[in-house]
Amino acid sequence: MSGNEFDIIGRYFASQPVTRRDVDLGIGDDAALISVPEGNQVAVTTDTLVAGVHFLEDANPEWVAHKALAANLSDLAAMGAMPAWCSLALTLPENDEGWIEAFCKGFYKLAEYFNVQLIGGDTTRGPLSISITLQGLVPTGQALTRSGAKVGDWIYVTGELGDSALGLDFILGNRDRTGLYAEALIRGHYLRQPRVLAGQKLRGIASSTLDISDGLISDLPHILKASGVGANVDAALIPVSSVLNELEKDPQVAAKMALCSGEEYELCFTVPEINRGALDTAFAHADIHLVCIGQIRSGSGLTLNWQGDAVDWQLAGWDHFSE
Amino acid sequence: MSGNEFDIIGRYFASQPVTRRDVDLGIGDDAALISVPEGNQVAVTTDTLVAGVHFLEDANPEWVAHKALAANLSDLAAMGAMPAWCSLALTLPENDEGWIEAFCKGFYKLAEYFNVQLIGGDTTRGPLSISITLQGLVPTGQALTRSGAKVGDWIYVTGELGDSALGLDFILGNRDRTGLYAEALIRGHYLRQPRVLAGQKLRGIASSTLDISDGLISDLPHILKASGVGANVDAALIPVSSVLNELEKDPQVAAKMALCSGEEYELCFTVPEINRGALDTAFAHADIHLVCIGQIRSGSGLTLNWQGDAVDWQLAGWDHFSE
Repeated sequence: MSGNEFDIIGRYFASQPVTRRDVDLGIGDDAALISVPEGNQVAVTTDTLVAGVHFLEDANPEWVAHKALAANLSDLAAMGAMPAWCSLALTLPENDEGWIEAFCKGFYKLAEYFNVQLIGGDTTRGPLSISITLQGLVPTGQALTRSGAKVGDWIYVTGELGDSALGLDFILGNRDRTGLYAEALIRGHYLRQPRVLAGQKLRGIASSTLDISDGLISDLPHILKASGVGANVDAALIPVSSVLNELEKDPQVAAKMALCSGEEYELCFTVPEINRGALDTAFAHADIHLVCIGQIRSGSGLTLNWQGDAVDWQLAGWDHFSE
Repeated sequence: MSGNEFDIIGRYFASQPVTRRDVDLGIGDDAALISVPEGNQVAVTTDTLVAGVHFLEDANPEWVAHKALAANLSDLAAMGAMPAWCSLALTLPENDEGWIEAFCKGFYKLAEYFNVQLIGGDTTRGPLSISITLQGLVPTGQALTRSGAKVGDWIYVTGELGDSALGLDFILGNRDRTGLYAEALIRGHYLRQPRVLAGQKLRGIASSTLDISDGLISDLPHILKASGVGANVDAALIPVSSVLNELEKDPQVAAKMALCSGEEYELCFTVPEINRGALDTAFAHADIHLVCIGQIRSGSGLTLNWQGDAVDWQLAGWDHFSE
């Protein structure tokens, strides 16, 4: 760590709620030292959030912190990994203690929930951005990847889709903010819950997994490409959020929006026929909604249907806040 | 990984010169997977470079890449760790392929030299900045830290100090750029060599170590504070660079500048009397200049002398490019 123009680390980041036994040396030296338990691989992911691109400059810093860490937690969820340690690169235009305090509150709340220890980082002056590198543990050989989908596997999605895009619409003023759901959806856009436990349950069951960060329509093709397969998806089966169903009466319009909604942090995964029973058992008491939306086929590319009939929707991917 | 507005990763970052056997899954999934060899701890460090703060917006991107990775390598050097894997969070205002290509060239050149594999990251749109999280390996229990200095230990510095500050003066136009050494010093400011091998040699010999990133005058006190000791340093013993000695005829002016010169990426370390022989042996054929500049004492704080006489210099720390 170097170049701390602000004495922030000492005041806000040196003491924190999580102290893991596998962290031998935390914040305060040139580097942190960690011990990896035998029989585990380390999963590593990095996500950057830039003000004006991934969140508005005046967004609630507590929510921004949640969103930044949640993006990384969602990546580890998609690997079936257990979150463990993270490094925070925080770039701030000024030493605004109120902002930092609120940011820390949101950050530590989520970190504590998933037992993640902040082990280091760098605080620099500059345009507001947050980059987090999160590491987790996964039993060797059991990680979920994007490349294992086979012809005939069923395609599933956790939870419901659409609320993240709706929330963004409200944030950007594309929808009337005085509406019934505006406040809850704006809050919900920032405070999404990564599917960390669901990811761990999928180990040994799913043949491929990823998290929905750019929109299902953009993300699922990553599995197809990595696995060398194609897919048929029935858009009428997409789990459209109840609020989106209410606000968009046309079910096809709602489904399109759900397909394009990014930063949902739900998981999309494939399951071989033989593992469907195990999937039902694993999630029997999990209180997580799972929906089968289609099936892997040979060939390549994603074919969209609507109640069995082919549709030719031109859907754009997620492009955050800016053009 | 998520939110890549540019398709950069595929084109420039997916193929790279280093492929380590301990990387089980590299770039291209939700997270990378690594295996840590038994008997090792993982050292983790993060450094962020922001345009206009740590480098000028129009700086050579090859040099900027070197500087960004070198800052992290230097942190691992100070731990006595062997660099291994890194994650790159790159934020770019626009998709400037020429810039990215040059950046990659500089990045991979240094990464290859130290056998570091890029395992992931995030490329986002926004004000130019680079944040790297670098991980390395160190035999369990052998890492060098800041907290082991004991009363009587000798204080050493590797290499020479001052060229980084001189280079910065030329970059900022505070010195005549047509001068004899301008070009070499500007280049040298960006292309400093982290003391990775020296750091590894110091394992089992040094009682404490750190890298000089904010200037010796700012950095050495971190060792003193972490170790609960004080130090006497004779500024006349500071290894002032030969160019600085030539440009600043007054040796005290030169020494002050060397003391404040940041981003030198030399190591400052302490060695117990009993290990001085081992130190000489370890570095006998290393072609690294080592100078003893003082001694650890009881109490606290750094006392500066000049050829044995106390001086009362008010020296400011390093504050990068901006005010």
